[in-house]
Amino acid sequence: MTLEELRAQIDALDRQLVELLSERARAALMIGHLKVKTSLPVYEPAREKVIYQNVRAANKGPLPDIELTLIYERIIDVMRALQRNELASERAALKGQGTGAPDGDTPGSAPEIRKEK
Amino acid sequence: MTLEELRAQIDALDRQLVELLSERARAALMIGHLKVKTSLPVYEPAREKVIYQNVRAANKGPLPDIELTLIYERIIDVMRALQRNELASERAALKGQGTGAPDGDTPGSAPEIRKEK
Repeated sequence: MTLEELRAQIDALDRQLVELLSERARAALMIGHLKVKTSLPVYEPAREKVIYQNVRAANKGPLPDIELTLIYERIIDVMRALQRNELASERAALKGQGTGAPDGDTPGSAPEIRKEK
Repeated sequence: MTLEELRAQIDALDRQLVELLSERARAALMIGHLKVKTSLPVYEPAREKVIYQNVRAANKGPLPDIELTLIYERIIDVMRALQRNELASERAALKGQGTGAPDGDTPGSAPEIRKEK
C-alpha cells in the first residue's frame, strides 16, 4: 500500500471511530438520565474497573495494553464530564421549575450527584 | 433501556473501538515502515491538521468538537509513540546488521527520523 492509501484508510477508520465514540456518548448520556432518577453517583470506580478489564480483554495488539489504557483514560474522562454537565443542567432545570420534570424525575435525588468525584 | 442494557451496549461499543484502534495502529505502523524507506519524519504537523479536520467534519454530536479533539490528541500521541518505537527498532536493526534490511530499506535514510518531535 502507498502512503496515500494508508492515510485514506486511517481517515476512514477515524470516521468510524467518531461514530462509535458518539454512540458511546449517547449511551453515557442515557445512563446519566437514569442516574438522576435512581440516585446513583456519576463516578463509580467499580464500573470503571470493569470497563478497563473489558478493553484489555478485547485487545489483540499491536497497541500494548498500557497505551490502550492511556487512550481509554481520556475517553472515560470526557464521557464522565459530558454526563456531569448533562446532570447539572437537569438538576438546574428541576430547581428552576420547582415541580418535577417529565419522565418521573425525582428532584429529591439530585443532591446525590454531589457524590461524584 | 435499563442501566444493565446500556452498560452491555457500552461494553460492546468498547470492543469495537478497540478493534478500530488496533486497525488504526497497524496502519500507523505500516506508514512507519514507509517513512524509514522514504526519509519522511514521524511528526508531520500538516498531516495531523488534516486528521483533526476529518474528525471534526465527521462529528455529529453529542460530543462537542473540543471534547472529541481531546480524545484524538491522546490517540495521536499514542500512535506517534508506537510509530517512533517501531522506527527506532528498525533503525537499530539496520545499524546492527550493517547491510541493508530486506525490502530495499536504505540505511542512509535513517538519520532523517531525527527530525521527529
